[in-house]
Amino acid sequence: MTVDPVLIEVTRGPLVESRHRGAVALASSSGGLALSLGDVTSPVYPRSAVKALQALPLIETGTADRFGFGPAEIAIACGSHVGSERHTHLAAAMLERADLNPDALGCGAHAPLGAAAARELIAAGQQPTQLHNNCSGKHAGMLATAVHMGEATACYCNVDHPVQQRVHSAMAEISGLPLGADVRGTDGCSVPNWAMPLSAMARMFARLGSGEGMDADRRAALSRILNACWQFPEMVAGKNRADTVVMRALPGKVFMKTGAEGVYCGAFPELGLGFALKIDDGAKRAASGAAMALVERLYPSARGLMPVGGIKTWHGVEVGEVRSSAYFEDALAGLKL
Amino acid sequence: MTVDPVLIEVTRGPLVESRHRGAVALASSSGGLALSLGDVTSPVYPRSAVKALQALPLIETGTADRFGFGPAEIAIACGSHVGSERHTHLAAAMLERADLNPDALGCGAHAPLGAAAARELIAAGQQPTQLHNNCSGKHAGMLATAVHMGEATACYCNVDHPVQQRVHSAMAEISGLPLGADVRGTDGCSVPNWAMPLSAMARMFARLGSGEGMDADRRAALSRILNACWQFPEMVAGKNRADTVVMRALPGKVFMKTGAEGVYCGAFPELGLGFALKIDDGAKRAASGAAMALVERLYPSARGLMPVGGIKTWHGVEVGEVRSSAYFEDALAGLKL
Repeated sequence: MTVDPVLIEVTRGPLVESRHRGAVALASSSGGLALSLGDVTSPVYPRSAVKALQALPLIETGTADRFGFGPAEIAIACGSHVGSERHTHLAAAMLERADLNPDALGCGAHAPLGAAAARELIAAGQQPTQLHNNCSGKHAGMLATAVHMGEATACYCNVDHPVQQRVHSAMAEISGLPLGADVRGTDGCSVPNWAMPLSAMARMFARLGSGEGMDADRRAALSRILNACWQFPEMVAGKNRADTVVMRALPGKVFMKTGAEGVYCGAFPELGLGFALKIDDGAKRAASGAAMALVERLYPSARGLMPVGGIKTWHGVEVGEVRSSAYFEDALAGLKL
Repeated sequence: MTVDPVLIEVTRGPLVESRHRGAVALASSSGGLALSLGDVTSPVYPRSAVKALQALPLIETGTADRFGFGPAEIAIACGSHVGSERHTHLAAAMLERADLNPDALGCGAHAPLGAAAARELIAAGQQPTQLHNNCSGKHAGMLATAVHMGEATACYCNVDHPVQQRVHSAMAEISGLPLGADVRGTDGCSVPNWAMPLSAMARMFARLGSGEGMDADRRAALSRILNACWQFPEMVAGKNRADTVVMRALPGKVFMKTGAEGVYCGAFPELGLGFALKIDDGAKRAASGAAMALVERLYPSARGLMPVGGIKTWHGVEVGEVRSSAYFEDALAGLKL
């Protein structure tokens, strides 16, 4: 049995206190692997990292045009937002344009991902609603698609609903995989999520950037989605979040999206590459650290955009750090493009 | 290089989504290992799992008697509490008896660990204070010790302060290890923390329960500490927390204490055993799962005390689970006592 390498380690004083193993694939649109670390062949759920692909039917069915969704609306449909007022208002406005109210959402309620938004909600004596769910933009887009297509809105999260079947078709076509029930799980927001090897996921993201092997309509739809995220990166995540900060600084060059349980995916259109990585244990700190290390390797100007991972006391004194392992650093340094 | 086994896995639909590797030692007071999984020889920071040992000087110096600290105060000195009012009030009362105010604390402030306590604080428009720090009871005890001994209170967190040197001596004596600067890190609450092999840590906890190799005074002090935790388990953690729930149900039989970065330690005095485990990646969900699996193996009546780890959608539908790996289950099943 193969064991994934340690990608990220967490130090305290003179010792490494914790270690995160994982796998990384960096691929071209044809599937050639520029980098392959660990097990890139076993199926991994991409979770929220594929929201840009889950948003394809929103464009391809004509739903976005029908309801006048511009780049901000398209970006939030691809986002895992922090639940601030600008996010919840935009998701609510999308639903309103489709003549729906927030009760139609199937994503469920959770406290805003953003600490500031979560605090504000409690201070105001309010409970989180489904609009605060980080996926509410995606779900508003899915619901609008159902309305536009004249489909029932009640069970749009179910795998056999046309809304999810369209997502499945798009993902299966672009990944080139059957994506059967054997790799199907249910995401935290109640919609299906299909697992695939990291190698195929990276190739799918390379294609997201290149449009390779797709007809003109799909290329245009993907281009519209990526440009929306680069134009409104704050709708993809929020203040001080890596996806927002990096895409604002490097529009056209880096598309990146986090997923739950230690997943990160992205595209580098200028380089003709896509990446997908998974931390075995699902830790966000390690997935973010590994994704930033990769982005910084390909675009050195990304260095310094996100704070380096210091491990601090509650008085703010640094007593350790979150860093790439020597193995991962060597692999990145040896990367030939 | 040896690789720790997967102890806990997290499923979603038909697949294992995430895996937590780790090491476990179950030892007698003499150091004989009843169970040894993974690397139990490399140094691991015990973090908050050793608060009961860090509290030894509070008893042995006569500080607890001097200030009239009963079992509740001793229990919170051993605790990582959730920051509810009963916890902050007790820590404040301890400081008051030593004629100190909360500003003397060196642990730093953080939002209460308990979600309810954190919410209440925000709703009341208040900022977290050092009293809300989960370690405030430990620090109140350390400060009281300095006062009782006539030592400066300003720098009691420093490694060369007598308060920390007494902790070091007790830990070195009971573990039988030198605990030098090569294994010394700084905990999040600013006090030193010494790493040791899990095998030695488990043996130390066996001795905590048995008192083996100690003089009568130390045995009495340890007994007083354990009994305090069993009498006031809510002071060791809080409502619905494993340490509180299990120790309330199994006083005299199970002492257990969580630590940051995936550490768990405990003692089974009736069985003459102690345990120490570390999840490589530092995940709390895995450390708790592994500790509960071990406790339930030794005391089947602990089953059902803590909710089984379901992975749910935001609507509460179970779509996966956190479970022991087959390897870990087999190892526990094969355990001979």
